[in-house]
Amino acid sequence: MSDAYIKNVWYMAAWQEEVDEAEMMPRKLLDIDWLLYKLENGGYAMIRDRCPHRFAPLHMGRRCGDLIECGYHGLRFAPDGKCVSNPFSDLIPPGADLPSRKIVARWGILWFWAGEPSEADEEAIPDFAFLEETAPMAQKHIRMDANFEILSDNLMDLSHVEFVHRDSFQSGGALMKGRHEARSEDDGTIWSCWSVEDVAAPRFAVPLADAPADRWTRMRWNAPATMFLEVGAAPAGAERTDPRVCRLRNPHIITPETQTTSHYFYNCFPGPESEAFAKRVFDEEDRPILEAVQREMDGQDFWEMRPVILNVDAGAVRARRRLSKMRREEAESVAG
Amino acid sequence: MSDAYIKNVWYMAAWQEEVDEAEMMPRKLLDIDWLLYKLENGGYAMIRDRCPHRFAPLHMGRRCGDLIECGYHGLRFAPDGKCVSNPFSDLIPPGADLPSRKIVARWGILWFWAGEPSEADEEAIPDFAFLEETAPMAQKHIRMDANFEILSDNLMDLSHVEFVHRDSFQSGGALMKGRHEARSEDDGTIWSCWSVEDVAAPRFAVPLADAPADRWTRMRWNAPATMFLEVGAAPAGAERTDPRVCRLRNPHIITPETQTTSHYFYNCFPGPESEAFAKRVFDEEDRPILEAVQREMDGQDFWEMRPVILNVDAGAVRARRRLSKMRREEAESVAG
Amino acid sequence: MSDAYIKNVWYMAAWQEEVDEAEMMPRKLLDIDWLLYKLENGGYAMIRDRCPHRFAPLHMGRRCGDLIECGYHGLRFAPDGKCVSNPFSDLIPPGADLPSRKIVARWGILWFWAGEPSEADEEAIPDFAFLEETAPMAQKHIRMDANFEILSDNLMDLSHVEFVHRDSFQSGGALMKGRHEARSEDDGTIWSCWSVEDVAAPRFAVPLADAPADRWTRMRWNAPATMFLEVGAAPAGAERTDPRVCRLRNPHIITPETQTTSHYFYNCFPGPESEAFAKRVFDEEDRPILEAVQREMDGQDFWEMRPVILNVDAGAVRARRRLSKMRREEAESVAG
Repeated sequence: MSDAYIKNVWYMAAWQEEVDEAEMMPRKLLDIDWLLYKLENGGYAMIRDRCPHRFAPLHMGRRCGDLIECGYHGLRFAPDGKCVSNPFSDLIPPGADLPSRKIVARWGILWFWAGEPSEADEEAIPDFAFLEETAPMAQKHIRMDANFEILSDNLMDLSHVEFVHRDSFQSGGALMKGRHEARSEDDGTIWSCWSVEDVAAPRFAVPLADAPADRWTRMRWNAPATMFLEVGAAPAGAERTDPRVCRLRNPHIITPETQTTSHYFYNCFPGPESEAFAKRVFDEEDRPILEAVQREMDGQDFWEMRPVILNVDAGAVRARRRLSKMRREEAESVAG
Repeated sequence: MSDAYIKNVWYMAAWQEEVDEAEMMPRKLLDIDWLLYKLENGGYAMIRDRCPHRFAPLHMGRRCGDLIECGYHGLRFAPDGKCVSNPFSDLIPPGADLPSRKIVARWGILWFWAGEPSEADEEAIPDFAFLEETAPMAQKHIRMDANFEILSDNLMDLSHVEFVHRDSFQSGGALMKGRHEARSEDDGTIWSCWSVEDVAAPRFAVPLADAPADRWTRMRWNAPATMFLEVGAAPAGAERTDPRVCRLRNPHIITPETQTTSHYFYNCFPGPESEAFAKRVFDEEDRPILEAVQREMDGQDFWEMRPVILNVDAGAVRARRRLSKMRREEAESVAG
Repeated sequence: MSDAYIKNVWYMAAWQEEVDEAEMMPRKLLDIDWLLYKLENGGYAMIRDRCPHRFAPLHMGRRCGDLIECGYHGLRFAPDGKCVSNPFSDLIPPGADLPSRKIVARWGILWFWAGEPSEADEEAIPDFAFLEETAPMAQKHIRMDANFEILSDNLMDLSHVEFVHRDSFQSGGALMKGRHEARSEDDGTIWSCWSVEDVAAPRFAVPLADAPADRWTRMRWNAPATMFLEVGAAPAGAERTDPRVCRLRNPHIITPETQTTSHYFYNCFPGPESEAFAKRVFDEEDRPILEAVQREMDGQDFWEMRPVILNVDAGAVRARRRLSKMRREEAESVAG
């Protein structure tokens, strides 16, 4: 796995249902081709999608129970990557085992630990328990031709909603004229929050429609780019624990495919209209601008391009700095 | 702007009418994305098509009068590139201004000065006054996947007409059996001229059809690749100032888009037949051979490839040498 | 010609009939664009497909008898590459001759010697005389986006038939459960052979259908990747010279187009069904896996990727080692 990526962190590999529905699912993650599949005991395997013999992709082969048979010369591999049979000999040569990664299912998401399996701590998986507290959502996966930090810049600075999504959300500046605040927690979590008091309630907060409301939007970030968005409204002056509070909560989880392409996992209410709306927002509004930014950056370092920094960037900049710090620490711990 | 290009020279950016017809016109010139637009006072602006905040292309935003609003987070820029408003703060951070270039309209062409605006001398724009002395022509812009010097090699050595355009022009060698001469002027202008005496008049010179004629073809070159072609005929023995002289005059102006692609600006008589003929000559005859030459050169230096030099290359070779000299002089003046 | 290729060896350039049917045939071989054509005396020419004047591809020009006229400015070249006329001068400048290669027709194949013509020994062309001993076959040429050694790995290890071509050949492991042996001859020829005794005859050996048979498959390799395949069967216990022996013999000849793409020449029985079957085997079964291996290797050195070596690789590995040795010897002979 390339040094360009932080290893000691959980990444989202896939929606659990994507893998459940496939016999084998190849997916490039962090520059490497991996093969994901569901085991007969209900667990999951993540092994390198490349035979160590002649480098054929294993997804071109077939499953034989929990074993994967290479489609080129028939070597078979177990879910932990171990080569367990050679059709032309009883000998299995040394070096024939595949890399594998620890992968766990939680809240409908498959998370993998990019570093040493022995150091993986499941308690460090960011909390997405809310995904199981609501009615089932439509779970989406798209690819974007842009580095994952370009995508988290976008999400950690929601002021873009006023411009990129002007027509879709018609926010009219209501919220963005409020206060913006970025906060960091000791465990590395970063929050980017907007709030405004005593204004009209947002459209989704139907029960609050006829009275003044306090509104907020907050994005929670965990390395590398695992985000959770809450859009909320309460009767003006009420506590945020007030039972009348209305909330929309969504995952926005980004996993690098390569240095210039990303997996974007999101969800939306199921149904043709809602899914078409989400598709428009992500594919026709965010995508063109984010991919254009990637083309403009074209391999240059973000900071060396001397970007102008605005107040509203505070959350995005904290996330970039935190990643830089984590990269340095991992490099030092390897060197030290 | 890359050091690969000469800075202290006027380049054609666009036909004036291309920009007049567009709200904003993005165009890559000399490796950089620029935004061209017409001001409300009739002038023109040329600013970098990239927001200094998160590097979004500005043409994805919108015009607000003479200001351009970034479509990502709403910064606004004036025609001189100055950042004049930030929707989320009264503060405009330092470094938020865009590069701009001096751009002037003359004879229906928008010319820009690639270097310091203060050094731009409009008197140095090559003379294309003839464009306003004739009936309006159809103004064309095409792109070719070839370095601009490959295109000027082609134009400065018109002997290719006998081969590349054999069927279209059916010149039958008449002119090319005449004399070829290359001349340089003190200001850097280079001429590549063919002439022949006492032959049949060319087809376009209808009034001269029944008597012997003197014929000529001359291409005028100014750096970097701004060319003017005159095809002429006179009654045999007459002066070139004779009122019976027939002339066709056309611009052939090349501007580098990148090191491997070029903008080609030309014109032709308006009308479906004439425009289809021109399209065939440029797109189906010149283009395949010029783009094939680019692929063969594939980043190699022209002189290091040891091209064979023929007599007919004299004009093209002078143009290449003049550009090399200008590049050296600019490099020395920066270093000195 | 790039140092990446062995020079002192015969390569297949084309099927003779491909060139006979074309006025001129451009083909990229060993990274260089060449022009192949048949002479009026029945011989063949192989000259560089690039004019030394302005680097235009000569196949964009035209034939004038045995001369090739450049389509850009009309220089003409003879079959040995010599520039023999310049339409605008009686002078032919120095350096205007084209590289050429010795090319000979044998058994319906055009072979070229990549090194100095004076060192070409036609006796060293691998023996494909069997091509003229059978009824005419359909001669095929395809390109694959994979290095030529990836293709010879595939052919020298026929155990892949059990997996890649499981459905097409339905070999069911019969042969591959037999013995495998790799042999090298003094002249550099390498054989990769499978054999098994006293089993059911293969389907193609109709006369042997009702009795036990001895079967074999042998692939003969000569540098760089010129292969001949024999699939045979004899009555159990009979000599291989027995008149009842049934044989299928086919060429599998690979010539590098570039370091990452290859020409693949094969043949099959003529007729829509047989040709469709061959197309499926090569294009839909071999091609996807070989091109995927190329993408996985992506410019990395095969040995530095530490491939696992299996017993069945013996022939393929000998071929790779022989090529490495030949490359070293050529490099030393140049340096020495």
